[in-house]
Amino acid sequence: MQELKNDRYLRALLRQPVDVTPVWMMRQAGRYLPEYKATRAEAGDFMSLCKNAELACEVTLQPLRRFELDAAILFSDILTIPDAMGLGLYFEAGEGPRFEKPIIDKASVDALPIPDPEDELGYVMNAVRTIRKNLQGQVPLIGFSGSPWTLATYMVEGGSSKSFTKIKKMMFAEPQTLHLLLDKLADSVILYLNAQIAAGAQSVMVFDTWGGVLSPRDYKDFSLQYMEKIVNGLTREADGRRVPVTLFTKNGGAWIEAIAATGCDAVGLDWTIDIAEAKARVGDKVALQGNMDPSMLYAPPARIEEEVQTILAGFGEGSGHVFNLGHGIHLDVPPEHAKVFVDAVHKYSRQYHK
Amino acid sequence: MQELKNDRYLRALLRQPVDVTPVWMMRQAGRYLPEYKATRAEAGDFMSLCKNAELACEVTLQPLRRFELDAAILFSDILTIPDAMGLGLYFEAGEGPRFEKPIIDKASVDALPIPDPEDELGYVMNAVRTIRKNLQGQVPLIGFSGSPWTLATYMVEGGSSKSFTKIKKMMFAEPQTLHLLLDKLADSVILYLNAQIAAGAQSVMVFDTWGGVLSPRDYKDFSLQYMEKIVNGLTREADGRRVPVTLFTKNGGAWIEAIAATGCDAVGLDWTIDIAEAKARVGDKVALQGNMDPSMLYAPPARIEEEVQTILAGFGEGSGHVFNLGHGIHLDVPPEHAKVFVDAVHKYSRQYHK
Repeated sequence: MQELKNDRYLRALLRQPVDVTPVWMMRQAGRYLPEYKATRAEAGDFMSLCKNAELACEVTLQPLRRFELDAAILFSDILTIPDAMGLGLYFEAGEGPRFEKPIIDKASVDALPIPDPEDELGYVMNAVRTIRKNLQGQVPLIGFSGSPWTLATYMVEGGSSKSFTKIKKMMFAEPQTLHLLLDKLADSVILYLNAQIAAGAQSVMVFDTWGGVLSPRDYKDFSLQYMEKIVNGLTREADGRRVPVTLFTKNGGAWIEAIAATGCDAVGLDWTIDIAEAKARVGDKVALQGNMDPSMLYAPPARIEEEVQTILAGFGEGSGHVFNLGHGIHLDVPPEHAKVFVDAVHKYSRQYHK
Repeated sequence: MQELKNDRYLRALLRQPVDVTPVWMMRQAGRYLPEYKATRAEAGDFMSLCKNAELACEVTLQPLRRFELDAAILFSDILTIPDAMGLGLYFEAGEGPRFEKPIIDKASVDALPIPDPEDELGYVMNAVRTIRKNLQGQVPLIGFSGSPWTLATYMVEGGSSKSFTKIKKMMFAEPQTLHLLLDKLADSVILYLNAQIAAGAQSVMVFDTWGGVLSPRDYKDFSLQYMEKIVNGLTREADGRRVPVTLFTKNGGAWIEAIAATGCDAVGLDWTIDIAEAKARVGDKVALQGNMDPSMLYAPPARIEEEVQTILAGFGEGSGHVFNLGHGIHLDVPPEHAKVFVDAVHKYSRQYHK
């Protein structure tokens, strides 16, 4: 494997000194880029793009050609595991992801297989290997998975949800069934992420998009507990380097102490928490990733630069900060604004790393 | 005006001793009740129900006939003010509220009138007077409004939103236009709530449903600042009693110190914050309202009772707690479960009030 030319991202996650604050953008390979839309059109539908290693590699690398990003992230979907379990993932226009066979009871949980990451999910590992090879050590490659709770919401609701009626009914009326499902998902995610690491991912991230719809007690029981199981089950070294793990719960700002206590290396922050406050609460234990409001990329360039400076000043001196948006980049953001954002992070952060 | 037979709700908001913890439910007059659906069908569409004082009174009183609730809340919509400003509110099936003429720029903000609460909004005041009279002092009547930020989201987006693209574009690119709109809305809300108080509301609540989509800095500038203006502009005594004011920001748990510092009497909590933590942080300054996950009403009765006891124990001894759900009751909850909830609050709270 080729030497890494830029390891700022990995160093910052381990709170080791860096020259400038590293930056990447959640969903940086995506619809705001015309070249992404062209490749997507070539692939056909979204899952065909995920399943074609060459094209998945192409869209992963596209944002790196435009912007001085410090990491690449595997292009894939968070619902690959439930799909590999046989739930029948499909996409309805304007409706988001749907499952043909949602989880409805204990029998449907019992029937779920734990997917073999090199078999049913082999297409993901092929994409990881292809991307890692084509990156030629330019920046590290991030692998990822949805959290067990977040995957379960789609599997039980049958798709996206606003009120999470079905899974909460299960959670309150049949908690043991849901725990069985979450445990099976945690085991599947461990195998999946370890296979990504073996295939070349140099860091992994767990996205808990929907943990924030839970009460503090339910979050710990039904989401965090299973993310902790994952952290404990992961391969933590590859190519002689530590493989850092980042946990991100959207709307989880109240619980960052508990997230940091899982043993993860970094905690992802959305934009509803002040990064100075987050650093004061957990910055001696973990690195922090975040946290500009993705909507700020609609603002004029000068305002974007101002916001970057505010967040950098909030984190202050020293390493342990990976700059990012607080959630995925919006699809109608001008790419030039993303460039202003990335460049501003490098330009204005140098003073904090002396 | 008739003496209040049950003033637990008002006393708890002012942290005065009570015999048991008072309880009501956000959206307690609503579609989960078959008698509500019957009255709604009689009225025709939703706004016709709001505009008919007799029928609005009828649906307000319906839940009080089923459950031992400690407060009634005016039946109305949060979008009455933008409608009275001439934006043309209408409801599209399955789409929620929409406006014919959304706010798009400074000129459209400049053109907005401040509605006269006894003229364009006279139907709301008629409903307040009718309900107050028909309550015959059984329990206090709560008046309410949406917060300026929350009203502005609908006015700028043209309806409900998931990503708040348009209003955030305005917030970051043209903040002065948005401040002008929010200030006009704050002035309108002050007139509107004071008119409700004059018409008979014994307490008022401001719903900031969408404040939680903002960063801490933007929340203070674009939402909280205007709620504070409202608190300072309200009539605080009527019929020789204090009129308590409750502020509720959904997903605002991180900011309850700042909310409490506005001078409000109570802070509403959703279910994503532990009430024991909230009490430790602000319980010497304000009362707390909340905070059971509304989805808990899907659970079996024994589980509902257990959750009520957990939250009561979290708040602990003494007054200053108004029990409620953390958001509106879901439309598919069995009414018998709501009864279990209300009864459990009274039954299990007595021990904390000695």
